[in-house]
Amino acid sequence: MQTLQIGIIGLGLIGGSLAKAIKKFTPHTVYGLNRSKGTEQKALACGAMDGVLTDEALSGCDILFVGLYPALTIKTVLEKLPLLKKGCVIADLCGIKREVCGALSEPCRVAGVTFIGAHPMAGREFSGFDYTTADLFQRASLILTPTEGTEQEERAVRLLDGLALAVGFRAVVVTTPENHDRMIAYTSQLAHVLSNAYVKSPCAKEHTGYSAGSFKDLTRVAYLNEEMWTELFMQNRDNLTQELSLLIDNLTAYKQAMEAGDADTLKALLREGREIKEQLQP
Amino acid sequence: MQTLQIGIIGLGLIGGSLAKAIKKFTPHTVYGLNRSKGTEQKALACGAMDGVLTDEALSGCDILFVGLYPALTIKTVLEKLPLLKKGCVIADLCGIKREVCGALSEPCRVAGVTFIGAHPMAGREFSGFDYTTADLFQRASLILTPTEGTEQEERAVRLLDGLALAVGFRAVVVTTPENHDRMIAYTSQLAHVLSNAYVKSPCAKEHTGYSAGSFKDLTRVAYLNEEMWTELFMQNRDNLTQELSLLIDNLTAYKQAMEAGDADTLKALLREGREIKEQLQP
Repeated sequence: MQTLQIGIIGLGLIGGSLAKAIKKFTPHTVYGLNRSKGTEQKALACGAMDGVLTDEALSGCDILFVGLYPALTIKTVLEKLPLLKKGCVIADLCGIKREVCGALSEPCRVAGVTFIGAHPMAGREFSGFDYTTADLFQRASLILTPTEGTEQEERAVRLLDGLALAVGFRAVVVTTPENHDRMIAYTSQLAHVLSNAYVKSPCAKEHTGYSAGSFKDLTRVAYLNEEMWTELFMQNRDNLTQELSLLIDNLTAYKQAMEAGDADTLKALLREGREIKEQLQP
Repeated sequence: MQTLQIGIIGLGLIGGSLAKAIKKFTPHTVYGLNRSKGTEQKALACGAMDGVLTDEALSGCDILFVGLYPALTIKTVLEKLPLLKKGCVIADLCGIKREVCGALSEPCRVAGVTFIGAHPMAGREFSGFDYTTADLFQRASLILTPTEGTEQEERAVRLLDGLALAVGFRAVVVTTPENHDRMIAYTSQLAHVLSNAYVKSPCAKEHTGYSAGSFKDLTRVAYLNEEMWTELFMQNRDNLTQELSLLIDNLTAYKQAMEAGDADTLKALLREGREIKEQLQP
């Protein structure tokens, strides 16, 4: 394997775990940068990176990952662009793609580097370097969203694909930013809103002794970082409000069947959901 | 430990697992009865019970558990009542309590036996004897709902409490049927409706490659037995529709904040949920 020089800006849960995974599973060199210098020291001390990502180190990078919130990702990439060597591949690690890819693809191409949207489908309900782990991406999928169809993009996707499989991802999915945002509104964002709303019943505080696995599953991601998720939700609110409307309509159907004392309709609604679940790939 | 004779009617997931757990963890004798004779043979063959619960075996039982759906539980207990010895303790294993306790407490007391509502807070998304396991109740809680405040009930609760801890339950919670049904509407029933509704987005069928832990958690119990849950939901629909209304209102608040482009309100709503989740006992 060719040894690459990889920069990572933002050593939070995703960026920090990626640093650890690259160091654990590949021979590549990792330079990291974080707003908090204490985190950089921790990352150095535990071997998650080889050094701090100085401007000099940045100019030698073959790949640059940016693990910041969307707006800050855009700002940071535009700032660092003049320092990057031609042919460098930049990938963000954000949970939404239209906004980020729309803002960065063109300026990056003009600067002679290749931007690819990337979203690792892995996470934990906690954030920050203290929760990072080299094994975060095991069996997860990585979504990549090239937009321009150039040969440079194809090469960049192959490079990221190889690296992803090396650090433990099960699969790499290539799609458009639009399709990414549509799917993620449902599979991830709606799940988080739902869990966060579910805990708001007054019964939640009395659950001990009255709850089991279904309660535990439903409440896990209610614990979320509201700064990050607000930004992600707002940038995808067309898709997310559509999913929320659909879910509210579906919940209302069960409620109305019960209010009408209509057991047959209720049973048909439950059967419908059970049959869909049966057909889902695991 | 005094050796008890225990009857179990209905060898489904809960009744069958209870039979296995009693045989694995206690010296008690278990007699079981099931509509399908094939299940009885399986239960005998794998040592989940000592024999079939004939009328003669029933008349010697110290405890009788009934693991059937609510309406059938009531019918079955009333039918078997004349065969039971004085002082026998009967416990159902249903997911709702007002209806069952209301129908059975008085007739049982008159017949000289003691009825206690019982709900093991354990389960799996699959039903039937093939999914039973002796370890189903490990670290779960058992809810008991005595209603009459008699000395016989107190003795029965102590007996069931001791047996529950012996087969692996972590705790026994004693409450009223009304409080049980109110809490379960939220902790279990709402979670099941929600999961069953969540899979109804057209995106669900395309989730592979776009989903991770939050999707997995949210969809697990979408697979449910609609016959059983329809009966449970209909008998608790006052509480469950109230929880559904509250949840729909809460979901609507997030949706409206996004539609209005109001990031501050959205963030406050997410923070509220996160803070509640932080305060919940694990």
